[in-house]
Amino acid sequence: MEKTEDLYRKNYKIIQDTDMFCFGIDAVIIAHFADIKENKKVLEIGSGNGIIPLLLSARDKGSEIVGIEINKKNVQLANRNVELNKIKNIRILEMDIKEADEEFELASFDCVITNPPYTKAGVGKISKNENVAIARHEIMCTLEDIIKNASKLIKNKGEFYMINRVDRLDDFFKLANKYNIKPVVLKFVHSKINTDATLFMVKAVKNVKTELKIEKPLIIYDNDGAYTDEINEIYYK
Amino acid sequence: MEKTEDLYRKNYKIIQDTDMFCFGIDAVIIAHFADIKENKKVLEIGSGNGIIPLLLSARDKGSEIVGIEINKKNVQLANRNVELNKIKNIRILEMDIKEADEEFELASFDCVITNPPYTKAGVGKISKNENVAIARHEIMCTLEDIIKNASKLIKNKGEFYMINRVDRLDDFFKLANKYNIKPVVLKFVHSKINTDATLFMVKAVKNVKTELKIEKPLIIYDNDGAYTDEINEIYYK
Repeated sequence: MEKTEDLYRKNYKIIQDTDMFCFGIDAVIIAHFADIKENKKVLEIGSGNGIIPLLLSARDKGSEIVGIEINKKNVQLANRNVELNKIKNIRILEMDIKEADEEFELASFDCVITNPPYTKAGVGKISKNENVAIARHEIMCTLEDIIKNASKLIKNKGEFYMINRVDRLDDFFKLANKYNIKPVVLKFVHSKINTDATLFMVKAVKNVKTELKIEKPLIIYDNDGAYTDEINEIYYK
Repeated sequence: MEKTEDLYRKNYKIIQDTDMFCFGIDAVIIAHFADIKENKKVLEIGSGNGIIPLLLSARDKGSEIVGIEINKKNVQLANRNVELNKIKNIRILEMDIKEADEEFELASFDCVITNPPYTKAGVGKISKNENVAIARHEIMCTLEDIIKNASKLIKNKGEFYMINRVDRLDDFFKLANKYNIKPVVLKFVHSKINTDATLFMVKAVKNVKTELKIEKPLIIYDNDGAYTDEINEIYYK
């Protein structure tokens, strides 16, 4: 079933298919976290219904946004969303990240952004809905596929942005080191002020030696269970 | 010049020499963070004036605590502090961590804890006071020396606790991976709720696959510049 939601910026709307993976707060906060300038060429990996490209465009981040997505139904839906909002600088392509280095010129993007599947293949319960399973689990690609290929496609000093679950932080550091992208900003996301972090957002840069900065944490809910002021600002301001 | 301070637990006191490196909040919070059971044999690396062994003993953490320290003057002071408080289960030895694998039986400690020099050799301004410089900079040993040797000295499934500056987090993950200790709990320390983190505390365990947990951050000061309730509790309760 399809539903249309408001993105609260530039009157953008998004059609979601409830049989597919629907976007969550993760996409909203990583699009906000990403410090992408207006003149940058952006590659987004794993577009789903196009939520991250739409949110970037709504915030004037990037001059050209190329999203790649392996699931044909998602590619179609994402492109309908681009058309619905009459956005000229987003293209969503059906592509496997593992083949992206043959499709694009190497070192041709200023920035890469991704909200990848969080769970390692073979771990945890897999959704019976294949479309949801692919979005959540490393079935079609692993974190290493993403970081290896992102590193090839980003220019020297180019930026990599990702949101992921904290249990992947260790893997992320290993892979970032292996593929020569240096974590420079980390921000942890806690459901409430008194709970463990669930997610992290990272900015990494190719071939730099900048020191890592850990920003103040992002807290989603206040003690009453309502969104914090910071989250409300990210959504609606 | 010497001064004596109260540790607010078991009537313990500590003599500090103001010409040497005096302990800060770092030692207090890592001794609190370390989840060391009462029956564990503990190695502490870089004892300084003995503050961490004293704080562990004051909290009944560890059945036997061996501190090693390379600076002879510190070793003498630390042992005076042990005597002053009539503590039976702490020994502070003059030893270089790089030689500790020849002095101790391998895999003979349940836990290792350290508040090492934070700054890489060759980086930043070095104190003219050699005693202070050695405590702050990697002059006598590097983070790799510490982690490599800690890993040799900890038993299988043994625990490693460290506090360090956030700009060393990346190095820590690399070294932990190289020497087979798995980060299982990370806690970031922020000066205030709205500032970047300055320090991290980590618990790592040898030869496990446990998932990493990021605890709620520790905030030192409230907005008025006074210690937060949490810090007051760590100090005085």
